[in-house]
Amino acid sequence: MPKIITFGEIMLRLQPENYKRFGQADRFEATYGGGEANVAVSLACFGLDASFVTKLPDNDLGRAAAGSLRKLGVDVSNIAWGGKRLGIYFLEKGASQRPSKVVYDRAGSSIAEAIPADFDWENIFAGADWFHFTGITPAVSDGAAELCRLACVAAKVQGLTVSCDLNYRKNLWSREKAGAVMAGLMPYVDVCVANEEDAGDVFGIKAGSTDVESGTLSREGYEDVAKKLRQRFGFKRVAITLRGSISASDNRWAAMLLDGDNAYFSREYPIHIVDRVGGGDSFCAGLIYGLLTGKDAAAALEFAVAASCLKHSIEGDFNLATAAEVEALVKGGGSGRVQR
Amino acid sequence: MPKIITFGEIMLRLQPENYKRFGQADRFEATYGGGEANVAVSLACFGLDASFVTKLPDNDLGRAAAGSLRKLGVDVSNIAWGGKRLGIYFLEKGASQRPSKVVYDRAGSSIAEAIPADFDWENIFAGADWFHFTGITPAVSDGAAELCRLACVAAKVQGLTVSCDLNYRKNLWSREKAGAVMAGLMPYVDVCVANEEDAGDVFGIKAGSTDVESGTLSREGYEDVAKKLRQRFGFKRVAITLRGSISASDNRWAAMLLDGDNAYFSREYPIHIVDRVGGGDSFCAGLIYGLLTGKDAAAALEFAVAASCLKHSIEGDFNLATAAEVEALVKGGGSGRVQR
Amino acid sequence: MPKIITFGEIMLRLQPENYKRFGQADRFEATYGGGEANVAVSLACFGLDASFVTKLPDNDLGRAAAGSLRKLGVDVSNIAWGGKRLGIYFLEKGASQRPSKVVYDRAGSSIAEAIPADFDWENIFAGADWFHFTGITPAVSDGAAELCRLACVAAKVQGLTVSCDLNYRKNLWSREKAGAVMAGLMPYVDVCVANEEDAGDVFGIKAGSTDVESGTLSREGYEDVAKKLRQRFGFKRVAITLRGSISASDNRWAAMLLDGDNAYFSREYPIHIVDRVGGGDSFCAGLIYGLLTGKDAAAALEFAVAASCLKHSIEGDFNLATAAEVEALVKGGGSGRVQR
Amino acid sequence: MPKIITFGEIMLRLQPENYKRFGQADRFEATYGGGEANVAVSLACFGLDASFVTKLPDNDLGRAAAGSLRKLGVDVSNIAWGGKRLGIYFLEKGASQRPSKVVYDRAGSSIAEAIPADFDWENIFAGADWFHFTGITPAVSDGAAELCRLACVAAKVQGLTVSCDLNYRKNLWSREKAGAVMAGLMPYVDVCVANEEDAGDVFGIKAGSTDVESGTLSREGYEDVAKKLRQRFGFKRVAITLRGSISASDNRWAAMLLDGDNAYFSREYPIHIVDRVGGGDSFCAGLIYGLLTGKDAAAALEFAVAASCLKHSIEGDFNLATAAEVEALVKGGGSGRVQR
Amino acid sequence: MPKIITFGEIMLRLQPENYKRFGQADRFEATYGGGEANVAVSLACFGLDASFVTKLPDNDLGRAAAGSLRKLGVDVSNIAWGGKRLGIYFLEKGASQRPSKVVYDRAGSSIAEAIPADFDWENIFAGADWFHFTGITPAVSDGAAELCRLACVAAKVQGLTVSCDLNYRKNLWSREKAGAVMAGLMPYVDVCVANEEDAGDVFGIKAGSTDVESGTLSREGYEDVAKKLRQRFGFKRVAITLRGSISASDNRWAAMLLDGDNAYFSREYPIHIVDRVGGGDSFCAGLIYGLLTGKDAAAALEFAVAASCLKHSIEGDFNLATAAEVEALVKGGGSGRVQR
Amino acid sequence: MPKIITFGEIMLRLQPENYKRFGQADRFEATYGGGEANVAVSLACFGLDASFVTKLPDNDLGRAAAGSLRKLGVDVSNIAWGGKRLGIYFLEKGASQRPSKVVYDRAGSSIAEAIPADFDWENIFAGADWFHFTGITPAVSDGAAELCRLACVAAKVQGLTVSCDLNYRKNLWSREKAGAVMAGLMPYVDVCVANEEDAGDVFGIKAGSTDVESGTLSREGYEDVAKKLRQRFGFKRVAITLRGSISASDNRWAAMLLDGDNAYFSREYPIHIVDRVGGGDSFCAGLIYGLLTGKDAAAALEFAVAASCLKHSIEGDFNLATAAEVEALVKGGGSGRVQR
Repeated sequence: MPKIITFGEIMLRLQPENYKRFGQADRFEATYGGGEANVAVSLACFGLDASFVTKLPDNDLGRAAAGSLRKLGVDVSNIAWGGKRLGIYFLEKGASQRPSKVVYDRAGSSIAEAIPADFDWENIFAGADWFHFTGITPAVSDGAAELCRLACVAAKVQGLTVSCDLNYRKNLWSREKAGAVMAGLMPYVDVCVANEEDAGDVFGIKAGSTDVESGTLSREGYEDVAKKLRQRFGFKRVAITLRGSISASDNRWAAMLLDGDNAYFSREYPIHIVDRVGGGDSFCAGLIYGLLTGKDAAAALEFAVAASCLKHSIEGDFNLATAAEVEALVKGGGSGRVQR
Repeated sequence: MPKIITFGEIMLRLQPENYKRFGQADRFEATYGGGEANVAVSLACFGLDASFVTKLPDNDLGRAAAGSLRKLGVDVSNIAWGGKRLGIYFLEKGASQRPSKVVYDRAGSSIAEAIPADFDWENIFAGADWFHFTGITPAVSDGAAELCRLACVAAKVQGLTVSCDLNYRKNLWSREKAGAVMAGLMPYVDVCVANEEDAGDVFGIKAGSTDVESGTLSREGYEDVAKKLRQRFGFKRVAITLRGSISASDNRWAAMLLDGDNAYFSREYPIHIVDRVGGGDSFCAGLIYGLLTGKDAAAALEFAVAASCLKHSIEGDFNLATAAEVEALVKGGGSGRVQR
Repeated sequence: MPKIITFGEIMLRLQPENYKRFGQADRFEATYGGGEANVAVSLACFGLDASFVTKLPDNDLGRAAAGSLRKLGVDVSNIAWGGKRLGIYFLEKGASQRPSKVVYDRAGSSIAEAIPADFDWENIFAGADWFHFTGITPAVSDGAAELCRLACVAAKVQGLTVSCDLNYRKNLWSREKAGAVMAGLMPYVDVCVANEEDAGDVFGIKAGSTDVESGTLSREGYEDVAKKLRQRFGFKRVAITLRGSISASDNRWAAMLLDGDNAYFSREYPIHIVDRVGGGDSFCAGLIYGLLTGKDAAAALEFAVAASCLKHSIEGDFNLATAAEVEALVKGGGSGRVQR
Repeated sequence: MPKIITFGEIMLRLQPENYKRFGQADRFEATYGGGEANVAVSLACFGLDASFVTKLPDNDLGRAAAGSLRKLGVDVSNIAWGGKRLGIYFLEKGASQRPSKVVYDRAGSSIAEAIPADFDWENIFAGADWFHFTGITPAVSDGAAELCRLACVAAKVQGLTVSCDLNYRKNLWSREKAGAVMAGLMPYVDVCVANEEDAGDVFGIKAGSTDVESGTLSREGYEDVAKKLRQRFGFKRVAITLRGSISASDNRWAAMLLDGDNAYFSREYPIHIVDRVGGGDSFCAGLIYGLLTGKDAAAALEFAVAASCLKHSIEGDFNLATAAEVEALVKGGGSGRVQR
Repeated sequence: MPKIITFGEIMLRLQPENYKRFGQADRFEATYGGGEANVAVSLACFGLDASFVTKLPDNDLGRAAAGSLRKLGVDVSNIAWGGKRLGIYFLEKGASQRPSKVVYDRAGSSIAEAIPADFDWENIFAGADWFHFTGITPAVSDGAAELCRLACVAAKVQGLTVSCDLNYRKNLWSREKAGAVMAGLMPYVDVCVANEEDAGDVFGIKAGSTDVESGTLSREGYEDVAKKLRQRFGFKRVAITLRGSISASDNRWAAMLLDGDNAYFSREYPIHIVDRVGGGDSFCAGLIYGLLTGKDAAAALEFAVAASCLKHSIEGDFNLATAAEVEALVKGGGSGRVQR
Repeated sequence: MPKIITFGEIMLRLQPENYKRFGQADRFEATYGGGEANVAVSLACFGLDASFVTKLPDNDLGRAAAGSLRKLGVDVSNIAWGGKRLGIYFLEKGASQRPSKVVYDRAGSSIAEAIPADFDWENIFAGADWFHFTGITPAVSDGAAELCRLACVAAKVQGLTVSCDLNYRKNLWSREKAGAVMAGLMPYVDVCVANEEDAGDVFGIKAGSTDVESGTLSREGYEDVAKKLRQRFGFKRVAITLRGSISASDNRWAAMLLDGDNAYFSREYPIHIVDRVGGGDSFCAGLIYGLLTGKDAAAALEFAVAASCLKHSIEGDFNLATAAEVEALVKGGGSGRVQR
């Protein structure tokens, strides 16, 4: 069975119930999530062997975070234990014209203050096929960025495929710093994933004809961005997710994949949103699954988009869809008829 | 006041809160429901005299199931008590492209193991006008199928109108067995109700030009199916509900009624779904109400469709809409303005 | 900082969870709200100095109502304490074709039985810029209507701008009585707000070409109504909110403002509704904010409509949107992208 | 099967969750209850034929109140429909040294404004064996007191046994008025029930040696009170419940029954309280059950005390214990071992 | 690290919230539990290597049950997948004099219908030190009893220590059948655990001087029972838990251990109960932990009793206490002071 | 009206529901609290003019914290806005022998990083009578300790009475550091409050004959400790709370007050605990109230102990008891009888 390693931060996610605003909340839904952890969970739910690497505080909250992964079949034996706190993010779910809002409270987390000695990459990567990280992890701290670099080096040494989701977060670092740090990591990356804004935010590469806020999607523009990314960094593959934001309640969702010189565009799904956090992560997991299980580029892309389409209907960061459910959607079953 | 008898199974319905998946649930909403029970409840809410016949275990759960009916005015005095367990069904509510999912846990239920001596049909039908059952009940067990047959015979002897909703459930029996058993019951049936797939699944009668998954509705196709059903079994009336499944969150909903040789098509409602389970049952109740209270075919059909349209906005199996609320919708009040 | 006084009733609002019907509820969400209180809260959330005037029973429920306002920064020092009970309203939230339903239980409330000696208007209005009330308050009781008149007189003496939202409630009084009482109050009013039905219900002034139930909006019709209102009562400004009721789940929302002879029409928002109660109040608050902070007529109108658009995405009567959030929507950010 | 009629008010009971105070509540548990309704429910749960008589508003809340009774098997066919509102009481559950707190909001309820023509007592009492009311009903309004009197007259004419629980509520009327009104009703009463304070509050009859606040129980004192009550009004039986209030969390609970000249004292239960509202009502129901099913005085008393002991462990006003459960406790099973 | 295998059934546990009765529940808390699963979880929480063996249906519910174990670190790789359903038990939590109530709905579960080919005991026991089962598993079905026997044989062959908790359940089998079946398994058992009634129920061995219902504990009586058990079956150790049932809310809790000829009695804890289900299982886990980690008999007993004392304060079947928490209680920290 | 200023940290308090452990929680109750904030709230609930001084981050969480105070009538106009985060503490509620557990996550909070320029003490103390702080605030950071010192100096200059609750927290600082820092603050303190361990932890002053874990209280020992404290620092008054920890569910609670040379001991309350966090703070508030409203030493002490006794029955950090409720308990009403 293919084995995937992902590395990053998992946080406690605190969300007011339903569509309540922060100031109305007298209780928070408590789940766990974070870019690379989300990818590991989705891959485990697809039935692959996924291991998540991070550092967690050795207290009840750190253990609960690990338990949330273990419950879903993610290997947690590579987690380092120690440090001061579990990162937290507060999520206020938006609706209609009111956007979702995230308040990060992750400074000083165990992974942000982790050191190289916490991780024995050679051991961690033994027997593995793929390494995935996102642009959030190097943004967490300089130390975490260095850990990413060390992991990338070790992954390449051991012959793993490396994928990276650019995932720019403006509240964690500036575009300038992101550009500099990420540029240093890209040479190790085989498969680059970005959303419709990331390439521009991080590397200044823009799709001329696309207006993100208006949700207009231009196939040519995205293909152009992907090709420029490939040109600059030599990626084998570049995938871009295409989100058409109609409102916080309704989105259109599609993606493209540049495989060598060939660009593939997926089917587009009109989505009524339950929870869109983790949408990009579920796309990455779907793409990794597709490529690792031998699908061709077009099929892998369709699997990835269908997987992430389903994620939008699932509460929490984690995509709990099975591979069979994704395949059913790919084959046309998007009508939502009761299964009984 | 018209009096209606329905016969079948009522189950404990366990559903994760909101749109949580089974694996995320640390609590289940507990309600009760089942095809024929749902019809009885809706008729009671419309103000008619409805009695539900079943067998329930004489324990706290069986009593709670009966209480849920009694609370809404359904007569429960014909329920037989005994047997081993209350049937259960688990429901995971779908959203957008993710379909709702039902896990049945109803084997060995009291009604599945009931025997003819449990029910004195002559007594039960005394003074009644209408008998309704669905294709789920004979699917539950061979014994239940025989009970259906006995009830049909008794109903005809006493001059009741008999209606049956075909309601094919692939997890309960095969198409072959369904076809054989149901064909034996149809001679007793005056009014046959089906959804857009049932006629094909049970009797192999298909609307050639309709693609259920794509949600395409063809008036001609349905009329054709209804006429073939009438031809084969001699029904007085055949009703077919027409569900256009856009997604698990949004459906189009309409129906047709073949009354003798005349086919009527209802208004079509675009529905944003709260809970679609019981949609077909609420249509049956609406149709029975309409026909029993003297509406003409077209009006009865519109009442039935409007009733079931409202059901989709109500949590649980039961349609709690009043006749006045249904009439208001029929008269055009679908804009959902606040009533204050 | 501009200071606004609003006067009316605040009630305990009891609502079944999610979309449950009254008969299904075994618990009620308990919040507080009422037309003029809602306006005060929204203005306080925008950062202005807002004071709400009412009479509340001196018991735990009255104190909780006051606390709900104080929490959000509304001045409650002008509230009179005494009387017998806190008014209550029960709200059943509608969905799709099922309308929301309100059961009022407000007879005999402290404010309905308040007397002139309860309020020292001269003191209350000292230093204030604006006085707002709605047509609900005089509908509550004859005494409350007289209190409104006294407040209006005092407000004009002290040079405040007076605004009134007609807000006709058919369950509180007849059209005839409403017309007579409101006509007596209009001479004090500078800014009149109405929804698409109020002018007709209260003063018999109708927009000939508009069919409210069908949700058809005619710009000319509304402009005509506004001008007739202005003609009859000499208002400086007349605003009309234009709600296109597609269903209880989806509305279109816009407004017009007649400023002197000039009529302005706002952008129209397609809204997926979380809670539409208080929509009109949030429009009033937005308009007052816009006019008091020096926006021109068109900008004030756009602010008001955007504010009330956001309200529809927020649970409860109160609009908790900040001025910055409203401005962001006015500037085009209606795509609901996650803010992180 | 013995048939019992009870008459009084059923209210919506709104209670903050767990031990939250009113000011902390953002939701209320919604149940229904009231002295005589509680008695009817308990008798129905014991398997007797119980009918509750009241007047309810013909709206969703009134229907929900009736449904809560019907669910548990109480006959609601004698309820009159109409009037303005359903009475409400707010309950804040106490703990340890903090007492439970009740805020009544029942003025103007349908039953408070009911008139003699609402009830056809001759019909209602046909075939019945027992009539029960409490001192709360005549306290609700002068009209309700007159209805009690009419009911008592009719009950005696038809030969029913009449029981009354004195149940003095200081927030509803003064001791003076209570004494006068209740004295007029006592001549119709066969079985009088009181708690340790009622006789003193209503009729000035006190147990010299008992200090209620300190929870000291004196057998002689209670016997003395019971005998004085019997002497003054000629009751056949007088029962007094003996509550030893250690704190809001822990009580001692026992009772005495004066049967003719013989006084019986029950076993005393140390109770860890889940919900003590309705404790006295459950005692009445237990006593009526015991006497109607042929138990001797001592056994009826033990049944009544055990029934009400169990009530203290059950949430809500209603005692849902079955006769078998009560008998098991009487026989010694108070150790709370798991039944599996 | 010591490795323990436990074998039995894990069920979905459905419990009304707080102290609600079954008939009041409109939602159920959903957790998972079962005697041997509980033991495995507790051992995993103590840090040992615990593996739970069972058969689960390959559906969402079966997977959720496995996930609940995996989350807490229990090895689930030996679980067989297949069969028809997950067993369920409904739990109504008692309070004060009202006992907790269990409704089993476990007939036809996957483990009840499992066959020898489902389990490769040689493989399962490889490298393991201890095998634990309870008297519930052979009671589930004849097949399950046979599986127990096969497991015992294999365990002895591979030199594991075998422990059995007699755990008689009268709703699953008769005393006669229990006696016969269990007598056939006892020869394989090294450590026998029983509560104060089991020995009598299963083998007719009684502690003459103890009255279970009254909660009276007699040291001599228990020692006598233990010795008789040892005599008959040749156990190395016999442990008996001593529960003094004051009420469903308060218990006394202690235990004795017969080690060879020496009897040890533990400290007794007065317990205010949060959840007593799984109390005996947590004792077994504590005893196994103590014996496997080299404690002497007295210390192992104290650890076991303290572990199970803590379990009574924890919701659900599972004892989530850590070894450190148990040790702290053993050392005297039962005063419940806040740890901060 | 007396005016009190308190200074310290208010945190978001996150607590699993009911008695769930951290690892079981899928939602947290979200309230706010902290030593000095709790004192301010209690004084505001008693009707005094209380102002809480702190620094809060200018985000949704900081504003919600302030709103929780404003709701209850605490003046928040002296709060400084800025900094990086709101401190958090996680609370797992204990029961029986399982202690409550606190996980602090407060490093880097706005108040921990506040600077002298954030607070204009002269202005803040204008017109105030009393200043209160606890030993937690100087433990938060060196900066916060310096802020405490500056506040004390300013308070003495303006003639305020200064009180300090020693409140040692071993997770925030060592005994050595606490001793050194607190010794520097004590000269400004008029009224010193401690619990049964603080004096020993901070200053090495012990009550020889008391064993805290065993809950044994020795009047002489406490008097001795109070006198030594007075001797060393010259306090006018020293109060010591005496908690007898029977278990996490039941405590005994009393206090002593050394007023000059006279020692007073309060009544002792046996408490069944709902929430014991904030117990000491509520004592401080009660004492300040008593002393500021002219009670003599013994009466002030009784008020303080009764106030804090009631706090133990109230969820959350805040004591929501009114002065009237406290007086009622002082006068003997501890039996918890329903108030209706």
